[in-house]
Amino acid sequence: MRKIIIGVMGPGENATPEDLINAYELGQLIASSNLTLLTGGRPTGIMDAASRGAKQAGGLTIGILPTENNNHGSEWLDIAIATDLGQARNNINVLSSDVVIACGMGLGTASEVALALKNGKPVILLTTDPINYQIFSRFSPDQLFSTSTPQEAIQLTQKILARLSLFEAK
Amino acid sequence: MRKIIIGVMGPGENATPEDLINAYELGQLIASSNLTLLTGGRPTGIMDAASRGAKQAGGLTIGILPTENNNHGSEWLDIAIATDLGQARNNINVLSSDVVIACGMGLGTASEVALALKNGKPVILLTTDPINYQIFSRFSPDQLFSTSTPQEAIQLTQKILARLSLFEAK
Amino acid sequence: MRKIIIGVMGPGENATPEDLINAYELGQLIASSNLTLLTGGRPTGIMDAASRGAKQAGGLTIGILPTENNNHGSEWLDIAIATDLGQARNNINVLSSDVVIACGMGLGTASEVALALKNGKPVILLTTDPINYQIFSRFSPDQLFSTSTPQEAIQLTQKILARLSLFEAK
Amino acid sequence: MRKIIIGVMGPGENATPEDLINAYELGQLIASSNLTLLTGGRPTGIMDAASRGAKQAGGLTIGILPTENNNHGSEWLDIAIATDLGQARNNINVLSSDVVIACGMGLGTASEVALALKNGKPVILLTTDPINYQIFSRFSPDQLFSTSTPQEAIQLTQKILARLSLFEAK
Repeated sequence: MRKIIIGVMGPGENATPEDLINAYELGQLIASSNLTLLTGGRPTGIMDAASRGAKQAGGLTIGILPTENNNHGSEWLDIAIATDLGQARNNINVLSSDVVIACGMGLGTASEVALALKNGKPVILLTTDPINYQIFSRFSPDQLFSTSTPQEAIQLTQKILARLSLFEAK
Repeated sequence: MRKIIIGVMGPGENATPEDLINAYELGQLIASSNLTLLTGGRPTGIMDAASRGAKQAGGLTIGILPTENNNHGSEWLDIAIATDLGQARNNINVLSSDVVIACGMGLGTASEVALALKNGKPVILLTTDPINYQIFSRFSPDQLFSTSTPQEAIQLTQKILARLSLFEAK
Repeated sequence: MRKIIIGVMGPGENATPEDLINAYELGQLIASSNLTLLTGGRPTGIMDAASRGAKQAGGLTIGILPTENNNHGSEWLDIAIATDLGQARNNINVLSSDVVIACGMGLGTASEVALALKNGKPVILLTTDPINYQIFSRFSPDQLFSTSTPQEAIQLTQKILARLSLFEAK
Repeated sequence: MRKIIIGVMGPGENATPEDLINAYELGQLIASSNLTLLTGGRPTGIMDAASRGAKQAGGLTIGILPTENNNHGSEWLDIAIATDLGQARNNINVLSSDVVIACGMGLGTASEVALALKNGKPVILLTTDPINYQIFSRFSPDQLFSTSTPQEAIQLTQKILARLSLFEAK
């Protein structure tokens, strides 16, 4: 049975220090919950911080790279998927995730939240800015959640997985 | 020399009556300005209305279809590009446009606005809801514009094209 | 009603002089038959030669670019579609074509012939090397044709279109 | 350090019994060599057989699905990547693999061999039909190899990885 995948999406070069700390902690909590982390795979920002957190906590990390070269990802990736799709790979990020957590916000992240909701995926925003929730909740209020700490985000993730009857096979 | 392409993005099945009227008028104005229209190509919503407007005004219409079948587009398309990419084709919509106009708002449209701005494209919002402008202007204030009528949107498009030194070759 | 699109696929930098002459002539014949040309759009090889032929004969030319920049195509394109998909755009080339003509052979061209046949598209090989026909005819003998001149290829294209009941709307 | 990925490509519904036995054995040998298997992920043909072989030998299995639903893959997948790209996902299959092994031949497989060689990937054909080697070796003789048993294919894979200085981190 396939592994349950939690996608953590967020800014690259423009991530804030607070977002980076949250991403690292999300990665750790995902790994210690026996879940698999998926990110956009680049060696920077939220992608890198979450992957480092998960890897250092003994988890499995997947990166969906925008590049054609499978060696251009974060050093904390176990699995580097090279797509050569540029930003079109954002749709793969969300389709391959069972739950999507947006850590911080940027233009790429906004596209991923929109695509995730459009594809019927549960999305958790880890943010303190209410406007992020406001714009997307107009379209998909039932799938969209807002939390303020990594711990809350992971607790909510586990509730959502239970509701979806998704449990990791041993 | 290649034709200048104006992308009109907007909801499909969930388009409002007002959005549909605006889209039809945008299509007409794009065609009468000797510009080429590009949409997501489906036979519904903003895509269909804008294509009909442009075609009935004698313009050239392109549709970037999410499907694998090039016969599944709007009947008002001259050129049907079949991508079989699902929502990943949204990135092609914006990369192929010289200016992007968002007519109405939905999840697919939000992903296109985000991807267009990320790719450095000028984006004009044709909307009366200020929140649509608010969320995206935080990231790319210089590329993002808000207008309230199709006429204003096309006048602004022509100013932007002039600034970009993009003129249609005869 | 949408335009009928003939895809001409072939090598870029490695095209032979004979292939380039054939591609130019194919482009001219497609245009003078009131059909629309689609290529991979790059400013080199078969893509450039066919587009030049079609454009100089008054035709309409579409290029499906592998790049993210819609200004990086052949100067003979009317419509430049920027995909940023690299070689994954080859599938769009064949899905968007009603008939595919392979002019010469290379690795990209081989992928396009295989994808076209897999997608049920008629494919005409314009080649003198029998091995090109041999490998692909094992899988799809009914859709695959071999010709030795551009004139034969276009005559065959028109027979196929007639059988498919595809005629260009005026 | 990321895991070394061996891509096994081959027909789905049209796989021969011999190809299926070879694929199962390839999967086992990849897993017992501490390498990671990647396939096109569908629950049929070479994709399913190779994944079952690898999984039953304790390996890690990745599937790059053409569908949008990450539950539509082979039951032997650990990691299901849902692309919704149709055949355009073939390019991801080969870009994400360090060595590509073609087990049997079909139109999808032919496209993958062509794309792999175009992208500079080493490709091993596991086939007894010399024409498969003949067509592709014209373009990339140095990257293309032909073997007749799964054991030979894996021995060759390990030689290639050693030459590329790719070793699995513990």
